[in-house]
Amino acid sequence: MLGICYYPEHWAESQWAQDAKEMRELRLTYVRIAEFAWSRLEPTAGNYTFEWLDRAIDTLAAEGLKVIMCTPTATPPRWLVEQYPDMLAVDVNTGLVRGFGSRRHYDFSSEDYRREAMRISAVLAERYGTHPAIVGWQTDNELACHDTTPSASDSALAAFQRWCEARYGSIETLNEAWGNVFWSMEYPSFDSIDVPYFAVTEANPSHSLAFRRFSSDQVIKFHDEMVDIIRQHAPGRFVTHNFIPMSDTQTDNYALARNLDFASFDNYPLGRTDLFFAGADTAQFKRYMRTGHPDFSSYYFDQTRGLCQQNFWIMEQQPGPVNWAVHNPRPEPGMIALWSWVAFAHGADTVCYFRWRQAAFAQEQMHAGLKRVDNSPSAAYPEVQQVKAELDKLNIELNDPLHYRVAMVSTTTNQWVSEIEQQGQSYHHEKVEFEYYHALRLLGLNVAFVSPDHSLQDFDLVVVPTMPIISDTFIANCKATNATVVFGPRSGAKTEEFQYPRNLGPGKLQSLMPIKVLSVETLREDISETLHFEGETFHSNRWREELGVEENTEVMAQYENGKPAVVRHNNLVYVATLGCVDFTKSLLGKLAAEQGITTFILPEDVRTAERGDYRFLFNYAGEPVRIDGFEDKEFIVGSNELSAYGYAITKR
Amino acid sequence: MLGICYYPEHWAESQWAQDAKEMRELRLTYVRIAEFAWSRLEPTAGNYTFEWLDRAIDTLAAEGLKVIMCTPTATPPRWLVEQYPDMLAVDVNTGLVRGFGSRRHYDFSSEDYRREAMRISAVLAERYGTHPAIVGWQTDNELACHDTTPSASDSALAAFQRWCEARYGSIETLNEAWGNVFWSMEYPSFDSIDVPYFAVTEANPSHSLAFRRFSSDQVIKFHDEMVDIIRQHAPGRFVTHNFIPMSDTQTDNYALARNLDFASFDNYPLGRTDLFFAGADTAQFKRYMRTGHPDFSSYYFDQTRGLCQQNFWIMEQQPGPVNWAVHNPRPEPGMIALWSWVAFAHGADTVCYFRWRQAAFAQEQMHAGLKRVDNSPSAAYPEVQQVKAELDKLNIELNDPLHYRVAMVSTTTNQWVSEIEQQGQSYHHEKVEFEYYHALRLLGLNVAFVSPDHSLQDFDLVVVPTMPIISDTFIANCKATNATVVFGPRSGAKTEEFQYPRNLGPGKLQSLMPIKVLSVETLREDISETLHFEGETFHSNRWREELGVEENTEVMAQYENGKPAVVRHNNLVYVATLGCVDFTKSLLGKLAAEQGITTFILPEDVRTAERGDYRFLFNYAGEPVRIDGFEDKEFIVGSNELSAYGYAITKR
Amino acid sequence: MLGICYYPEHWAESQWAQDAKEMRELRLTYVRIAEFAWSRLEPTAGNYTFEWLDRAIDTLAAEGLKVIMCTPTATPPRWLVEQYPDMLAVDVNTGLVRGFGSRRHYDFSSEDYRREAMRISAVLAERYGTHPAIVGWQTDNELACHDTTPSASDSALAAFQRWCEARYGSIETLNEAWGNVFWSMEYPSFDSIDVPYFAVTEANPSHSLAFRRFSSDQVIKFHDEMVDIIRQHAPGRFVTHNFIPMSDTQTDNYALARNLDFASFDNYPLGRTDLFFAGADTAQFKRYMRTGHPDFSSYYFDQTRGLCQQNFWIMEQQPGPVNWAVHNPRPEPGMIALWSWVAFAHGADTVCYFRWRQAAFAQEQMHAGLKRVDNSPSAAYPEVQQVKAELDKLNIELNDPLHYRVAMVSTTTNQWVSEIEQQGQSYHHEKVEFEYYHALRLLGLNVAFVSPDHSLQDFDLVVVPTMPIISDTFIANCKATNATVVFGPRSGAKTEEFQYPRNLGPGKLQSLMPIKVLSVETLREDISETLHFEGETFHSNRWREELGVEENTEVMAQYENGKPAVVRHNNLVYVATLGCVDFTKSLLGKLAAEQGITTFILPEDVRTAERGDYRFLFNYAGEPVRIDGFEDKEFIVGSNELSAYGYAITKR
Ligand SMILES: [Zn+2]
Ligand SMILES: [Zn+2]
Ligand SMILES: [Zn+2]
Repeated sequence: MLGICYYPEHWAESQWAQDAKEMRELRLTYVRIAEFAWSRLEPTAGNYTFEWLDRAIDTLAAEGLKVIMCTPTATPPRWLVEQYPDMLAVDVNTGLVRGFGSRRHYDFSSEDYRREAMRISAVLAERYGTHPAIVGWQTDNELACHDTTPSASDSALAAFQRWCEARYGSIETLNEAWGNVFWSMEYPSFDSIDVPYFAVTEANPSHSLAFRRFSSDQVIKFHDEMVDIIRQHAPGRFVTHNFIPMSDTQTDNYALARNLDFASFDNYPLGRTDLFFAGADTAQFKRYMRTGHPDFSSYYFDQTRGLCQQNFWIMEQQPGPVNWAVHNPRPEPGMIALWSWVAFAHGADTVCYFRWRQAAFAQEQMHAGLKRVDNSPSAAYPEVQQVKAELDKLNIELNDPLHYRVAMVSTTTNQWVSEIEQQGQSYHHEKVEFEYYHALRLLGLNVAFVSPDHSLQDFDLVVVPTMPIISDTFIANCKATNATVVFGPRSGAKTEEFQYPRNLGPGKLQSLMPIKVLSVETLREDISETLHFEGETFHSNRWREELGVEENTEVMAQYENGKPAVVRHNNLVYVATLGCVDFTKSLLGKLAAEQGITTFILPEDVRTAERGDYRFLFNYAGEPVRIDGFEDKEFIVGSNELSAYGYAITKR
Repeated sequence: MLGICYYPEHWAESQWAQDAKEMRELRLTYVRIAEFAWSRLEPTAGNYTFEWLDRAIDTLAAEGLKVIMCTPTATPPRWLVEQYPDMLAVDVNTGLVRGFGSRRHYDFSSEDYRREAMRISAVLAERYGTHPAIVGWQTDNELACHDTTPSASDSALAAFQRWCEARYGSIETLNEAWGNVFWSMEYPSFDSIDVPYFAVTEANPSHSLAFRRFSSDQVIKFHDEMVDIIRQHAPGRFVTHNFIPMSDTQTDNYALARNLDFASFDNYPLGRTDLFFAGADTAQFKRYMRTGHPDFSSYYFDQTRGLCQQNFWIMEQQPGPVNWAVHNPRPEPGMIALWSWVAFAHGADTVCYFRWRQAAFAQEQMHAGLKRVDNSPSAAYPEVQQVKAELDKLNIELNDPLHYRVAMVSTTTNQWVSEIEQQGQSYHHEKVEFEYYHALRLLGLNVAFVSPDHSLQDFDLVVVPTMPIISDTFIANCKATNATVVFGPRSGAKTEEFQYPRNLGPGKLQSLMPIKVLSVETLREDISETLHFEGETFHSNRWREELGVEENTEVMAQYENGKPAVVRHNNLVYVATLGCVDFTKSLLGKLAAEQGITTFILPEDVRTAERGDYRFLFNYAGEPVRIDGFEDKEFIVGSNELSAYGYAITKR
Repeated sequence: MLGICYYPEHWAESQWAQDAKEMRELRLTYVRIAEFAWSRLEPTAGNYTFEWLDRAIDTLAAEGLKVIMCTPTATPPRWLVEQYPDMLAVDVNTGLVRGFGSRRHYDFSSEDYRREAMRISAVLAERYGTHPAIVGWQTDNELACHDTTPSASDSALAAFQRWCEARYGSIETLNEAWGNVFWSMEYPSFDSIDVPYFAVTEANPSHSLAFRRFSSDQVIKFHDEMVDIIRQHAPGRFVTHNFIPMSDTQTDNYALARNLDFASFDNYPLGRTDLFFAGADTAQFKRYMRTGHPDFSSYYFDQTRGLCQQNFWIMEQQPGPVNWAVHNPRPEPGMIALWSWVAFAHGADTVCYFRWRQAAFAQEQMHAGLKRVDNSPSAAYPEVQQVKAELDKLNIELNDPLHYRVAMVSTTTNQWVSEIEQQGQSYHHEKVEFEYYHALRLLGLNVAFVSPDHSLQDFDLVVVPTMPIISDTFIANCKATNATVVFGPRSGAKTEEFQYPRNLGPGKLQSLMPIKVLSVETLREDISETLHFEGETFHSNRWREELGVEENTEVMAQYENGKPAVVRHNNLVYVATLGCVDFTKSLLGKLAAEQGITTFILPEDVRTAERGDYRFLFNYAGEPVRIDGFEDKEFIVGSNELSAYGYAITKR
């Protein structure tokens, strides 16, 4: 189904009815509202003015639209900041208070703000919880966006000290766990613990990891309380949150999503491509600047689906040029439709576009909408009509839930480890994970993201791009599966408290594989050595581990000096180096084939995905392309001759 | 005429007489003094010690030199800072107090400093206002240099709140004007308004624009009061200010110059070239590193002339290597003379060199003077002698005022708009404006800079590189002219309060042209698309607007997809994209020709200008060059065979 | 001899005995301990717990190992920070307190910290000063590392004001010395002086230089007091300090070393190469990333030897990949041995490796040791065994002290000058000095570093890469020597108080050479002009001075315009420009030959050094190489056919 983000408070009330009528005519199902409206719902302390919102909801409901209500806590009003100045966070890089004047100006550790946020959530939930037009709720908005998870405020510090006390019990245990003896960093008491910023040189990584865990927990605690309040007053309504990527949140999104009905994602392929590929040369950069990288939307869609292991929503879909990236190109014609279908192909149940009409003021006035500021339809409008018409030809829900044979295990803790201790500037956790994902997608494979706590028994191939800190549960999950499990370098390289394993890397993995990491080197981004695999030569780069292996270990690939670079023991494969995409694709292709998983040979810019009875084909290239092997398929949408930026849907 | 900047307080009094004698022998007319001398004029509060200055003036006057006196307010003494610590500004990026120890350490919003600055100005003006040797006054020095216009101090905040109250009347009007409803940013009262810095993410652009307008107003208010004081006590003396480029001041230089007799400029071609072309490759960078870019001095000269629509002064002319750029090369031999003549050709009445003798101490000891530290003449000295000899052959004042057929409309507000909302990192306001200017100069055209309030009736070709915010006055000026008016992209893209026009871009321009901007995209610096114009192919890049035009609109150039990129309606031309210099030159050349304006085909590094009865030719290349078509001219200086870094002056 | 850094407090006491036994078996002589152990030696104020350290020393002594004891003052414990919050320094860039949580969190100007640091030093020295196993002491650790010399604290400011009072006597003298009249920067009293940071634009360079001198003096004063305390209680024991390069300390290492028995150095060739060559292209960077630049270790070794004009120690030798550079590659096989021998060849008496066993926790857990975390020997272990076996074949001490014919004069003051007034971004003091050193080493010459106070009479060729501020002592030393003395550009360019010499550059050098620097230009890194020398063409770049010379001056090299670039007068040579390495090598080669100094023609990656009766050859290339001219030598180690990363030692 399709939906829209709408801000009635931004427009004259006289326009609402026409807007609602046009939404119905566009055959939208859902409308999300009230996200940033706190200053209009409570203009002064305790003075609630819900009447306009009542009328807005009624206007939408009159056209049969279903409403998603939001808690407005991402944008506390000015009067609240004046009442509780301590609600503001403190920047961990500059020590400056992060002030009012934009959004997300609150500290997750502020007791005052927490209480006020829950109060307004409760008031809203009480008033609208059982409103017949309201079918679901969104909590806050893009939690943790703008690096708001960590704070160096007094509130955060006090809460961190209590968190440490709860985790470690005694200060001696903490000092031991962090290895504080190293530089006489031993704390005499929990009250003497600092935030891990503003030290003379780098902080103890164990300290930094503890603070990240704490900060993540604060976001989750804040959010869980809000979910509880909504559930209490809004029986039978779904509760979701519009996530940004876990790599941006500094929060364990799996845990954050735990109490939700499903996860939602805000999808901005061009902005994300612009930032992620900032280092690309002209030709590379231009290639995807108006389409987004072919794997970049699905990468986040598959992650979002993994949060609740449920089909998900796109709560905000980019409808044209945006305002916030470094450069903001126009999507190629057809991309809005293509992106929408990529979302459905990867498990979306609903795609909502952001936003109905482009705002005429403030920070996002250069952000496109389905309608322009003058209410004329933008380029995206007919593409939405097209998607709706095509959706009618399929019945996507019938075939759910999805089942994939390939899984990727991701965790935020392990991103933190490599951010805290990068060791080589060329090691970027999110690029490492993306490279593995990209290789799997080039092979035409669907990928299920799972947390380490998730059983691996349903899968045939499991990829762990990196997992420095491995839990006992995950070891047990590995033991219990027959899947081939592939580990990237750094796996098992740290203990739970960010120490070096006394038995060397890969630490706990040694209980499954008889190997040891003898030394590690990191290389500059532009430098590579060679890797021998299956008679071909590939590249080893960035992070390279020297392995000690027992004689009977199978060596799958070797370094330039003949020493083992990829080894296999039983169903486990350990990759001791980062490599080029060609290598990763070759390795995973071989392992997939051994497990009887069908891979595809597709043109470079074509991707495929399956959902239920359907197989989807997407062409990110600016030229038409013919896909071999699909001649005999029954096409619901398109054909095996894909147009430029075109797609096709066939029965499997 | 020629002049010099002199700091008697930097040298032993025993040397003054010889210096003055040599200045006379060099046939200088003017000497500027006392600019930074506050600590010597008032060593402790209220203890004035003018006697040395009296003697210095007398010494200069005894040689027939005319003196320009300065208010010393750019360098308040230490004791004043101790008395009024609140006079210091606060850095808007770091929140740190901008302390004593260099210069410009004051906040334009400090009431204490304003009062003290006016006091010292009045004391000076009273004492020296009618001194026969003093012919004119310079206010302060390079106002707003070192990013001193904005401040995040308490004084600035309080003044900003009052400024908002005066501008908007009610807080509801302000909230509406800024669109503060967007993220619940509504202010309950004027006292709750913040400076637009230190927020969690970007501030509301309307808020930012208001703060820039306010900050500019504070500079102007400060300066106007000082001008009034001088005029009160110094009847018949001119008052000027030595401006730095408007792109650096964050102040509306047109308004700042309003009460002056004429504007002056401090001209440092090498330093500015070093900074402006920092991204250039080796060959490009080396080409102009010792000459300055051929259009770089005149670009600022023409701007300075536009401030008062009067001939101007160069108050400081670079005489050799300086100290403050990233790299500080030596000018090529002859450049001091060439730059001086470029100034005269573009409307300077006087060129003063900075400084008489290189300082032997403090921050600028690596800044060349006409004389070296040991009092030997530097390389510039004979070049100044040469300029004076050549000046004697012309009578430049007789033919003034100048009249140009081509105008460029510039405003600081529109620079602010594109700085506040860059939208694409490749969009640089000052580069866009410079590219249009550069194209006009390659065509050999003289360019008058005008503010939007200036009548356009005297011109035949008017170029508006960009003007997001268009005033009604400017619309009226456009209607009243028969000139061809060329608008660059972004024109009319914003309302007066930095909102998106409800009728889309180009906003108010739609009253003159039936076009609409349907969407905007920005591209990375290194990426371009194609532009078809007059049967040739050019480049479209950085900022690209999609136009909706009526059927009968003339399309002058088209995008790669055939859609309109440049359109014409009556005498108005709208350029919807940035392009390469070749395109801009071709377009403006065609439009000039249509208006019967003669253009020139000159070697790439040669420039021409006209003033009164004279035409000037300048060769920025290191090789001699022969200029075709000037064989029969009567040359006052040089000939049609220009030497390396040479120039010639001919009767028109 | 060989030694090791050991941290018994990081390991279970049960492991100590085995560690000591293995150290003896590896035939190590020295063990350095207690460096960062304050929190274990005094867990709460005044509560000393030395018993564990007693036992650790006894365990080591039982195996015949000799102990170097350290004062633990680089890492004050948390309780001390709570007791004296003013002991923390303030960052001169951000104004933020530099907090607890890593190391070096103290302000050299804090009276409280100074007293406490001396107290713990005295307590330690009293307890262990005459312990028979303890043969020497190390003060603190890497003083000034992490930019800890300067501080903007209240303590530092107050101490600076008193330092100024002592240096200048009256505020008038100070104002005159600094040229504060320049921008009315005159201070009314010593109490009004600021730190030279946080001003609106650049501070007065004289002010900045004074603050650097002060800051350096504070480090020295702190250190001298500590040395005195140790000497008082530890008769007959040597006292040393483990220096980092003078370019990093912002301290006059010559003065800092004055009271030591000898200087030690912490040698990390790969990390330093990674940082120093960060701008290199792929091939250049890769070439030395696993060997370090061939001149990069010896460059610092020779400097360290120069501090006390004594043979030195390597107190910490990199034993494998480290953790702190931007990228951390693995040393090539054999490099640990090669680096050790380079140290001995350049005058080391002892090489200690850092550290015995890789730490399993905290900031440096990715830093290799001789043993891995699991106690297995790392790749360095057998290389240490090899070095010890080879050492047994030589008797290095017998032939000391060393004597070199070539000297390089270095000072930290002159680094400060070029950092404070860079004038061209391409001028890097440490690169300029290194280029001269590199050229000398390519010629196979051993280089003695000396301070300007050191007699030059023993040398035949003296190189002064740059010396803006020249002392009278140095002028006298130049007069007293028959050596050829080569001055690089900027020499004599400043007075003692950082003013421009009234007689122009090279200032005081004019008493020795009849030349004047008429102007200076700086060029961007990638731009060069030509230099004519001995009939060949070389490159002149970055810093170029125009010279005025008397007619009879010998011009050795000329600029592209024929003007003098290198001149000679008597035994003095003045090089007025920076140039390419080929030029510097050619010039120095010619001058060495004229003095009868034998130079070598060696393969590009081979270096030679002599010590006593021995000559050493080192091959930094990955291929074997045969050295011509050594066929008949008596080789103690290796032969004239060097293996990849190999070395040889021959009788001279
Ligand atoms: Zn490859
Ligand atoms: Zn072009
Ligand atoms: Zn060269």
